[in-house]
Parts: sequence; structure tokens; C-alpha cells
Amino acid sequence: MLIQLQPGLAPAAKAAIISRIEGLKYKVTEVKTQRAHYLVGIGKADIDLRAVGQLPGVQDIHRVSDEYKLVSRKWRVRPTVLDLGDGVRIGEGDFTIVAGPCSIESEAQMNTVLDHLTENNVRLMRGGVFKPRSSPYSFRGMGMEGLRLFHQLARARGVKIVTEVMQVSQVEEMHDYVDVFQVGARNTQNFNLLDALGGVDKPVLIKRGISGTVEELLSSAEYVFSGGNEKLALCERGIRTFETASRNTLDLNAVPILKEKTHLPVLVDPSHGIGIRDYVPDMALAAVLAGADGILYETHEQPEKAASDGAQTLNFEESGRLIRNLRRVYELRQTLE
Amino acid sequence: MLIQLQPGLAPAAKAAIISRIEGLKYKVTEVKTQRAHYLVGIGKADIDLRAVGQLPGVQDIHRVSDEYKLVSRKWRVRPTVLDLGDGVRIGEGDFTIVAGPCSIESEAQMNTVLDHLTENNVRLMRGGVFKPRSSPYSFRGMGMEGLRLFHQLARARGVKIVTEVMQVSQVEEMHDYVDVFQVGARNTQNFNLLDALGGVDKPVLIKRGISGTVEELLSSAEYVFSGGNEKLALCERGIRTFETASRNTLDLNAVPILKEKTHLPVLVDPSHGIGIRDYVPDMALAAVLAGADGILYETHEQPEKAASDGAQTLNFEESGRLIRNLRRVYELRQTLE
Amino acid sequence: MLIQLQPGLAPAAKAAIISRIEGLKYKVTEVKTQRAHYLVGIGKADIDLRAVGQLPGVQDIHRVSDEYKLVSRKWRVRPTVLDLGDGVRIGEGDFTIVAGPCSIESEAQMNTVLDHLTENNVRLMRGGVFKPRSSPYSFRGMGMEGLRLFHQLARARGVKIVTEVMQVSQVEEMHDYVDVFQVGARNTQNFNLLDALGGVDKPVLIKRGISGTVEELLSSAEYVFSGGNEKLALCERGIRTFETASRNTLDLNAVPILKEKTHLPVLVDPSHGIGIRDYVPDMALAAVLAGADGILYETHEQPEKAASDGAQTLNFEESGRLIRNLRRVYELRQTLE
Amino acid sequence: MLIQLQPGLAPAAKAAIISRIEGLKYKVTEVKTQRAHYLVGIGKADIDLRAVGQLPGVQDIHRVSDEYKLVSRKWRVRPTVLDLGDGVRIGEGDFTIVAGPCSIESEAQMNTVLDHLTENNVRLMRGGVFKPRSSPYSFRGMGMEGLRLFHQLARARGVKIVTEVMQVSQVEEMHDYVDVFQVGARNTQNFNLLDALGGVDKPVLIKRGISGTVEELLSSAEYVFSGGNEKLALCERGIRTFETASRNTLDLNAVPILKEKTHLPVLVDPSHGIGIRDYVPDMALAAVLAGADGILYETHEQPEKAASDGAQTLNFEESGRLIRNLRRVYELRQTLE
Repeated sequence: MLIQLQPGLAPAAKAAIISRIEGLKYKVTEVKTQRAHYLVGIGKADIDLRAVGQLPGVQDIHRVSDEYKLVSRKWRVRPTVLDLGDGVRIGEGDFTIVAGPCSIESEAQMNTVLDHLTENNVRLMRGGVFKPRSSPYSFRGMGMEGLRLFHQLARARGVKIVTEVMQVSQVEEMHDYVDVFQVGARNTQNFNLLDALGGVDKPVLIKRGISGTVEELLSSAEYVFSGGNEKLALCERGIRTFETASRNTLDLNAVPILKEKTHLPVLVDPSHGIGIRDYVPDMALAAVLAGADGILYETHEQPEKAASDGAQTLNFEESGRLIRNLRRVYELRQTLE
Repeated sequence: MLIQLQPGLAPAAKAAIISRIEGLKYKVTEVKTQRAHYLVGIGKADIDLRAVGQLPGVQDIHRVSDEYKLVSRKWRVRPTVLDLGDGVRIGEGDFTIVAGPCSIESEAQMNTVLDHLTENNVRLMRGGVFKPRSSPYSFRGMGMEGLRLFHQLARARGVKIVTEVMQVSQVEEMHDYVDVFQVGARNTQNFNLLDALGGVDKPVLIKRGISGTVEELLSSAEYVFSGGNEKLALCERGIRTFETASRNTLDLNAVPILKEKTHLPVLVDPSHGIGIRDYVPDMALAAVLAGADGILYETHEQPEKAASDGAQTLNFEESGRLIRNLRRVYELRQTLE
Repeated sequence: MLIQLQPGLAPAAKAAIISRIEGLKYKVTEVKTQRAHYLVGIGKADIDLRAVGQLPGVQDIHRVSDEYKLVSRKWRVRPTVLDLGDGVRIGEGDFTIVAGPCSIESEAQMNTVLDHLTENNVRLMRGGVFKPRSSPYSFRGMGMEGLRLFHQLARARGVKIVTEVMQVSQVEEMHDYVDVFQVGARNTQNFNLLDALGGVDKPVLIKRGISGTVEELLSSAEYVFSGGNEKLALCERGIRTFETASRNTLDLNAVPILKEKTHLPVLVDPSHGIGIRDYVPDMALAAVLAGADGILYETHEQPEKAASDGAQTLNFEESGRLIRNLRRVYELRQTLE
Repeated sequence: MLIQLQPGLAPAAKAAIISRIEGLKYKVTEVKTQRAHYLVGIGKADIDLRAVGQLPGVQDIHRVSDEYKLVSRKWRVRPTVLDLGDGVRIGEGDFTIVAGPCSIESEAQMNTVLDHLTENNVRLMRGGVFKPRSSPYSFRGMGMEGLRLFHQLARARGVKIVTEVMQVSQVEEMHDYVDVFQVGARNTQNFNLLDALGGVDKPVLIKRGISGTVEELLSSAEYVFSGGNEKLALCERGIRTFETASRNTLDLNAVPILKEKTHLPVLVDPSHGIGIRDYVPDMALAAVLAGADGILYETHEQPEKAASDGAQTLNFEESGRLIRNLRRVYELRQTLE
């Protein structure tokens, strides 16, 4: 069961509610986020919610049968919208485009990308400074030095930053330089990292695991939310299957399913989702009609020379065309029956 | 290597060409279809095509490195269009909608569907009379009797029939009553059936196997083509993965990949692809932007009462809305940059 | 529900039982096999079996909740043993070794294999005469001519034949020349073929589908059994997964699971299961301890020259060593606690 | 390329070697482990190794084409054996049994397990104190307090501890209380954690990722080795596939493949590998014949009451029987041809 407490509730009243729930053999987890104060009760007994609902201090109570509670749409029907400031939002009512290189490589590179984005009125830039690489001998990113520069250049243009955090100790050092923390596909079930991001007042974008189910993605979001951070978005980026004709299998089925199960925004990453540059735009456009709230893709002035992921990266001409097409498709989507 | 022979070539000239290719240690397969006469040469030696190309009777010669040859776009660049007569076509330049129930159940049922389709100007109806079912105790379809009735009713309305053939012996008995033979996902590698369909002068729609790769789907099409039948289309219908939130994982990545690899039309079946009625329209629309040449989906007057697949079947209101939306999206697609 | 009827039951008594079951809203399928006469009732109502059980002519009655009924161990606890004559058996109490080439190629090839098998006291030889091949241009087997020769040579040595049947029309022509019909991994859900094999009085070995579940394999066996043929065995041969280090992923988990769910014998094919010659013996030995009733693998005098599957085929030295090791491991298995 | 340097090499000699390799356009990574000092050169140029091999200070040089270098058997042919002290070893020449509960729960629980293990002469106990759980509301383990107690009780009995480390900050605090750090299946590609474990002088057991390939597992081991820690072992524990009849699909194919590709010991975890208590012993025994160097499984006095994973946990009677059988099978393995 999920209880939203009245704001500014006195400790004694809260204690009384908790004690009542525990009396029903439910285990209580207290969750205090940027927006509200909740009690999550986990138990098996079949109880009458009204008895608890009438206690002083209970603003709202719901039965949520899903494994995940706070991120479920069974409880919160209104979609979550993340406000990044300066008019940049992620969530229903807007269509979000996040573009940029796989890796941050140099000041010159960032400037060309920022020029491209601002010319196309794109307000969010992606770019990795800490890179998870299968081999220890591959380029692992520019690190904090790169991030500080990225932040400085992007700020000057009014562009927001989405970048991957790989471990708990980076959360604090990266905090002041990012607008959205990205949790990568290899860390979707790095529970300590999710816990740490629960303590932060910045949006978190969680990518689906390489072979993660939709349920697991939602449970990972529940970790962050129950840790105290409601500012969450999810991202489908392709799953691992037997098919080798594409890098991953972009599971667009997950988009309408997630949109019904959760109130969180759902983005799609077609670059990793198919992994072949020529087809990235097709999959990006398809994702819009599957119901995505936004797209996150890779672009670079010269994809052939990119430090990583060149084979799935668009050049600026392709990227510009995609942006224009995305907007036309999104516009159509709003008028469909 | 792939050779197209000049029409009406004398046997001696053909024999001379074959003998020349065999002299190069290539194994030759002769293919005579409705449209032309080909020689497919399989071998490993690195040879100079021009020497063969200059032989009398060779109209065209190409090197095709793919496992599949005749269905490859490396050889035939112009897309294949299937003309079903009466102005009904499948392939580029048209957007094909095929709708209808999972199973043919009764005359009344067919009439309601035909009414719905003709009202919406849909010219192709699907419906199974032979049903592949996992359990031997499930409904297995109305058989030939159902097909004859289906044919009679559809003809009266100018609607074409797409229906599944399950075994070699059915090819002949079904022949006069179908417009498109469908090969189901469990028979994609039923090579004897593919061979038999190679000898038929009716279009064949091959569904991707439940866990079939894109390469295997193309090789299955090669079977039919090399058997003598060029009238082929392919259909993505979802693959089997670890994800259980949907019935299958619709692999829209396969659409642009197939469109580049082959000249054959590519349809998408969102009903089996996601298996959840509420989300079928989203995936159908997404498929259009992934580049599909058409959509094949399930509709029934009362999905709750359908003999099979009710959970993924649209009612007529949903189906009508989908048809209108599909046409608007297809219209937009033609104007995208 | 599953009812075994008394032998030689009068038609009127049978009709009375059927009518009683149908009165309970159960759909009845009558199954008459080589061994007995059954009624399979499919329905949802929660009924008291005793009322039916006391009707005249009912020898035995069971509730079977599985999708598959006749092959379930919930009904028949005693393991099925297939008796091929001349002291050759498949099933508990024996450990079956089936070995031979992927494809039958020539009389000389068959003779060398038969020599090898008889020297090692192996009584079952595998070898394909009809070969399912992904590409229409690959070698497709010697056909009936090869089978007749295979039969003649094997008979002369007292060796039994296991060979793949690919389509309905082959069932009859192959019948007199095979001892065990094999259904290949691409035909596990070729329901027409399964139906046809239900009408035959020869054992059938069904391989698991390339991406078939354990449940589906059992349902495929149910097709043959409910068609009238109880002489059945199953074979795990590797499934398709994301892993590319091996040809398939041999799912030995399936062995103890199948042994509990069904009374049918369970063999394992390590050659297709891993697809790498050097590791085939390891997997064969592992399969014995997973509980397999036998092993089916590929051997050839010169694997490098085999017409197909050479990369996973043992030479005779490797094969002889494997046979001796298999027997030692099986002997140990019988003495484990 | 991989170079082992002579012990105690002068800095100038080392610098000369590095400079020579860099002159060949190879990127050099210096690796100093507990046992030796290496240079790993990554590059594409086709060079003559002898020129480098003759430089002063080069003890050994090898070309290794794999993505992973230091863990490859192409370089180090002799199998790695981990010596945990007190006669406890992991690696060829011994068969390692690691048993214990999923989670450490209480002093009483640990004592019953330790009794069981010492009675059966098992020297390694597993048990989680930090538990990765999909849901934030599940039991997450006793933490450091539990580990200190675990260490104290196990030490008193001469039993070694294998336990999971989940994040970088735990490496140091856990260090003095563990004998083997286990990296769980959700952290196989937690590269920061792998880096941190490279700096430790304690053995590390890396479990294969839930959908990790064999190649990725080896690359993860390369991270730890190249970070300075040679004391490594790998563990197959089942992968995620479409099959739902078992919790995971135990991929025993991976055992002989890994044994050929790497010099590191390979263990198997049948508890997670199949996830069904009754079949765990079968799969454990099968793993021995697939070539495993040891087995890691879950046991608990009362599996029904275990805090986690009860459904796949053996009771002590089952565990004792398994231990005796494992030893008999391992004994047989050593005598097979």
C-alpha cells in the first residue's frame, strides 16, 4: 500500500500511522522526496484500506499490487514532468530531443556540436566523460576535467547536460556540473548507485539493462524514488537477443507498455537500439509513434573519427534532417485520432 | 554469381553458358520463374565476371556475395511490386493494409468483417482456415470448406484473400481459392513447403520465424524464388526473447535492414508482434515510419468471443481508427526529408 | 481429464462414457494407440472424477492439469521404454548411444561407420537422407535411394536406423526403411507432420525446436501420442540464445525437468548442442549425469571431408573413446546415492 | 602483444622497452601484479616480435590476438591455482566445493552451516552480507556487522569465506574479513568495481553476467588482472533466455570453452543456474564432467525458512549427499580416457 502524508505532519501523528500499519503485519518504508512524504507498506494480508485512510495525517492511500509502488501509474495517474529550468522540460506535453557525441573528446568537438544543437534549437546535449568499456585498454573518457569544460561551454549556450555516472563516488563530484544524471545499461541494477542517486536533487535518466525486463527497469526506478528522488525518466535502448544483424534489438513494444505502467517519462535511444547509422533515423521516427516522450541519439561532426560508437553516429546533416522530421512526426501524433 | 538469360534463348546457347561456369568450378542452379530465366552460380573461386558476361545469351550478370542471391537488392535494385489484380498491389508506391480475424469461424463472421473492410476501403482480408496450434486439443480451423466460403464471399466484394498454408498437400487444393499464400512463423524453415510454393504462380507472404534471423528469412525467400516463383513478400511478426511483458518482441529494426538487403516488399504484423490489443495500433503506426510497405493485423467484431487470439484483436471501431491513422502517417512519410 | 478404457469395450459403453463427460461441458478426444484406448477430456469445470470413474468400462481416470495430457508423468508414472527389436531399447534401464554422420553420403561411408559402430557394440546409427538446409543451394541429401541402401547395409549388421523425416509425404515411403523417425528442430511444430506420425507404428524421436520451450516440446509429443502413436522419445539439442561462442546453447537443465514432467525417454544431442568438435565429448558426458537416457552424436571417418556439419563431428578415435567413457559414467550414475 | 619483464628491472631499461613499442604505434599499458611485471601493447600494425623480444629486460613476449590478453591461455598455458592458505586451493589439481546460504542471517544459522560443512570436510563457505535485490523493499543483508561475525565464526573452524562485494567503497571495509571477493552477476560489467579489485591482494571470483557473453566475462577478468590482481576465478551461473521452465539457463557449454580460452579456474553455480532445488544436484554433477574446477551452491538447514532463494537451496541431507557424489564423479573424471 502507498500512503501520501499531509505536508508538515507532526511526528506523533506519523508514528501513529506507522504503528497502525505495522500492526497489520506490513513492513513500512518511509520515503521523503523533494515533493512529498510517503509511507510504503509491503505485506500480504488482505486488509481494508479505509481504516488506515481515515487516520489523521493521511492525505491519500492506494493499493498497488505491482512490485514497484511509487513509480506505478496505478497510484499516480498524472504524468511526471521534469523541469530542468530555462524552459527545458522532459515529459508529456513536450517532445524532448537529446543529441551529442558518444564521448566528450575536446573543446573543439563540443563547440561544433553545441553550434549544431543551438542552430536546430535543441536544448539538451548528451556526451560521456566516464565511459564504460568492455576492454580495459579502450578509451575511458576525459573524466571530471572534461565534464567541467562541457558544463562551462554548454552553460554559455543555454544547453543542458545529460551524462553518465558510473559509480557512487562520482555522484557528488559530478553533481554541480550535470543537469541529468544518466544511469547506463550496464548499471541499471547497480543498486548502490541507484541508492546514491536517490539522495540527490537532480533528474536521473535510467537506461534499460542490456537484458533487463520492463519490470526490472521499473524496480530500478523504484530504488531511486524510494531513496528520495522523484525526478526520474526511463530510456529504452535495445535489448540483447539472438539477432546479430543489428547491434541490439530495439524493443519499441516497451514504450506503450511503460507508458501505461508508470507515470515517468519514457525516452528512446535509437543509436544503441539498432547500432547502424543509416537506420537510426527510421527507428527514431518510429519511436515517436510508439509513444516516446523523447529521443536520445548520437551525433558528431565526423562520425568516422569519433573516439567511440562512430558506426551508429549521425553527422550534422543527417542529424539536422532527423530533428526536422521528428518535429513533424510529433506534430502529426498530436492530431491522430 | 547471378545471370539473367535473354528471353527465348536456344538450348545450345544455354548449355554453353552453363558449361563455361562449371568450368570455373561453380555449381549451377537453373531457375525459371514467371518473369525470367536465371542461372545461379555458387562457388568460391575469384573470377572475372566479364568473360562470362560476354557470352551470347547473357542479358545481365552480377556478383552477389550474400548467401541469398535472387532476393538480394545487390542484384535487383528496383523494388518488387506484387500485382494481385483489380488494382490491388503490395510493394513500394502503395501502402498495403491486410486485416481480418485470426480464424475464419462462420459466414456471419466473414460478412461482418467484409462489411468493415469495404467500408474502410481495405482490399485484402486475412483469416486462417488451417490453424497451427501448440495443443492438439485446440480449434484447428474450418479447413477447405471454410476457405471455399471465404473465397466466395470475398470475391463478391472485390476483396483479396491472404491465408496460411501449412503443408505441401494443401498447396494444390487451396490454390484456386487464395490470392496470397501465407507461410506462418512455425513454417519459415519448412523447406519442402517452400519448395512446393516455388512451383506456384500465386504470391507468397513469408513470416519471419519465431526465432528466425533476418538472414534465415531471406534464405527462405530464396527457396521459393529459386523454385520458380518471384511473387514474394516478407513479414516481420515479432521474435522470441527473454521479455515476457509482451507476447513477442516486435523487431522493427528488421524493417530498414530488410528493405536494404532485398527488393521484396516488407510487411509488419503488430498483432502477433506485441500481442496486447491496446498497444497494437501504436506499433502499427511505428512500423510505417520504420519503413514498412504494409501492415497485417487482426480484427473481429467481438474480439472477446473470437475462436483464437482475442487478446490481440481489435474491434471494428479500433480498427477503423487505426486505418485512418495509418493512411495519415503514410501520407506524412512520403513528404519527410 | 484422462481416461483409459478397458480393452475390448463395447461401443455402447464407450458412448455412454463420452456422453457423460460431454454433459460436464468437457470436449472429448478419442485416442486409440498401439497399446490402449483413451479418452482425453478438455474442460474448465471443477468436477468430481469419481462419478466418471465408476462408469462401466473405465479402467483408470486421472486429473492432469498440464496442457499436455497423455505424455504427462502425472498420469503415467512408469517410464516408457521403446523396444526396437533384437534387444535394442530406448528408455530407462538402458543407456542408448546413437551415432553416425550428419548426412548419408555413399556406400563406402556407411560401411566405415557401421564397422566403427559394431566394433564398439553400438546398435543405433543416425544419418540424414533428407537434409533441411538454410540455403536452397546446399547439399540436400541422397533421398530415398540413399535410405534404401542405408537400410540394407544396416540390417546386414543388425544396426537400427534413426533418420529425419521432413514432410508428410515421406512418412509412407520411408516407413519400411527406418527404425526410428526423427523430427528435426525446424519441424518440432510442423503439426501436420506430427499428426501423420501419429498414424504410424514406428517410434518417433522429436527434437526440441531451435527456440522451443520445454512445454512446446511436450505439446508436440502430445500431437503424436493423441494421433495414436505412443512410441515416442524426446531430444534436447541446444537452443538459440545471444551467445555466439557456441553454435547453440545446450540446455541440460531441460533434462531433469523433462524427466519429471513426462514418462518419455529423453536423449541429448551434444553435437548440435555445442557445435564444436573438441567439446562434444565433455557435453555428452555431462548429459549423462544430468539424467539423459541416451546420447545422439555425429561421427565420420574424416570429419574434415563430411558433406555437412564437419566442424562438430568426431572422428572414429574420438568417438570410440567417447563411447567407452559414456559407459563408465553411466555405470557410475547407477551407483550414486 | 604481451611482455613479461624480468624481475627487478631498472627503470631505464623499462623505459627503453616502452619507447620501442610506442615507436611501433602500439599503446602500452603497464601492469604490476602480485607475481610479476608486464607490458600490454595494443595496436594494429603487423610487427616482428623478435626485435622487441631481444631487448634487455624482456623475459617473455607473446602475440595475443584476443581482446583480452593477460587472462588468455594463448599466453599462459599453465593453469592458475589460487592458494587461500591452510591447504585450501582453487584450480586444477583440486576440486573446490563452496557451499552455504544465500544470505547470512544469524549466528545460529552460520553455526549450523559451519557444522555441516566441517562434518563434510568442505573448506569454503559462501554467504551474502550485502544482497543485490531487484526490489528496494526486500531484505538487503546484514552488512558489515554480519560479515565480521561470519569471519570470526568461520576462522574458528578453519573455513574460508566467499562473499559478494557490491561497490567500490566496500572493498576496503570488507578486505580483512573475506578470503574471496565475489563479483555478482549484476556487477560483471561494473568496471569501477573491477578496477578497485585490481588493487587488492585477495582472490576475486567473477560471476558471468545475466546476459553476459563468454568474451565479456573474460574482458571483465582482464580489468582486474590489468589492475594488478592475478588472483582470479570465473563462475558460470546461468544466462537469461526465453525458457521459463527454469530460473536461468545453465550454460555448461561455457565451461570447456572457458577452460580452453583462459588459464583461470572455472567454477559453476547450479543453484542459480537452474533455480529449482530438486534438480540442483543433477546439474552440479553434470558440471563436473563438463570440466568445472569446482561448484558453488546454496544450502541452509531449513530452506523453506531462508531469507532469500529458498526455492533453490538444498537442506543438509541433500547437500551431504551431493558432496559425496561430487567427489565420486570427480574421482572418475580423473580416470577417464
